[in-house]
Amino acid sequence: MAKPKRVTAGVLLIGDELLSGRTRDVNLQEIATFLAPLGIAVAEARIVSDEADRIVMALNALRTSCTYVFTTGGIGPTHDDITADAVAAAFGVSIDVRDDALAVIEDWYSRSKTPLTESRKRMARIPDGASLVTNPVTGAPGFQIGNVFVMAGVPKIMRGMLEDVAHRLEGGAVTHAITVSAGGLREGDLAEALRTLQAGTLEVSIGSYPFFIETRDGAPRRGTNLVARSTDQGALNSAGEALMQIVRDAGGEPVLEDGAKR
Amino acid sequence: MAKPKRVTAGVLLIGDELLSGRTRDVNLQEIATFLAPLGIAVAEARIVSDEADRIVMALNALRTSCTYVFTTGGIGPTHDDITADAVAAAFGVSIDVRDDALAVIEDWYSRSKTPLTESRKRMARIPDGASLVTNPVTGAPGFQIGNVFVMAGVPKIMRGMLEDVAHRLEGGAVTHAITVSAGGLREGDLAEALRTLQAGTLEVSIGSYPFFIETRDGAPRRGTNLVARSTDQGALNSAGEALMQIVRDAGGEPVLEDGAKR
Repeated sequence: MAKPKRVTAGVLLIGDELLSGRTRDVNLQEIATFLAPLGIAVAEARIVSDEADRIVMALNALRTSCTYVFTTGGIGPTHDDITADAVAAAFGVSIDVRDDALAVIEDWYSRSKTPLTESRKRMARIPDGASLVTNPVTGAPGFQIGNVFVMAGVPKIMRGMLEDVAHRLEGGAVTHAITVSAGGLREGDLAEALRTLQAGTLEVSIGSYPFFIETRDGAPRRGTNLVARSTDQGALNSAGEALMQIVRDAGGEPVLEDGAKR
Repeated sequence: MAKPKRVTAGVLLIGDELLSGRTRDVNLQEIATFLAPLGIAVAEARIVSDEADRIVMALNALRTSCTYVFTTGGIGPTHDDITADAVAAAFGVSIDVRDDALAVIEDWYSRSKTPLTESRKRMARIPDGASLVTNPVTGAPGFQIGNVFVMAGVPKIMRGMLEDVAHRLEGGAVTHAITVSAGGLREGDLAEALRTLQAGTLEVSIGSYPFFIETRDGAPRRGTNLVARSTDQGALNSAGEALMQIVRDAGGEPVLEDGAKR
């Protein structure tokens, strides 16, 4: 049987506010969850500030090492929105206000009776050779150039843009996941058995994640979530059974969780 | 006057679960918020999977470009915890179970009457030349090697370890921030004036962040937060005044927000 095709994504999150601690990113998780059912696995993510050279360097690294790259942030109308220009620089193409993008923005703002200022026109700056990505929330489009998709940083707008991205992607083998939760057990109670299982099950990747929950009555609850991930559903099911048994052998009561949690 | 010293941090978040979408990282924001008052600014963050070559490559890039590097994740007792070995490989030093780390772990587990398995002993694997970082939550230590601090991925443990990190850091000039919130105004209403302000105020960095809030009665509320950041408190105060005036000029009512939000 042919080895299933591995399709990878790089995610580049752009914005001073993500590095200063002001804002906690939510887009990476959203993108990963969106891509997973398409058979596209996020291989690496980087977070950089609104500085052209940092964006260019990170983008060039990711777009050569990953099948696709998804960027968020820096495509609004203000002076600190420099992503489009940086992407053009990374690809070595020119950039200017483009008629197709301007038409979209003009139409959007005329409907909402908002004046089309010079700053808003800047949002029509699109690199040569790029195709537009529809923004169903605030009008100003994102764009695709080569294997790179450039999207807004505001989560609601980013999610809207993803809808115009999915049909452009060629996915690979879908990675499925099974989670077995072992309340009351620590990683160290399970580690030896997990190591043996992983060594004998190369087509399944097994992860172990301790958790600590403060319950309502103040008593801490702890345990370990075991996650098996694989493109092979049969191997995954066997690994799931094995994980259940490992938890039982350690004196725990395994709980099979929603498979959507990867 | 001498230019204030710029001290930077790279953050390396390690773990398949962060890239698969299973887990949303909270450590980056925590680290950034912890470092800011020390005068250390996060310059770049990377998120990589539990694969040795990816960890080594990212760590070597960050530790040469930043003053300090902080890693989270991959130092537990299970087979997928390979961070310590990868860090040793990145530094080209050997690694083995070390007596000082083992003593800490033995002491911790004997108090909690938890058996010290071979897997738990693995948590005493510390690279040659590293110093231990105390873990006040679950015992097994992190470590410092050169300019790199290796910490746990579980947020509660990571926060605990930071307490034993602060005193080892030499900070620089502290970046202060002022946030002016402009409810009801969009970025495009303010962009021209912001551009002019930024062009004339090079010692202050001005950021603009649109927000969309779904209110309880379902009516969306939108607006723009303007953030000025600077190591120069005088310049920052002037910029704050200028931002307030820009919002008023655009017909809005500026609200000065808690300065702790960077």
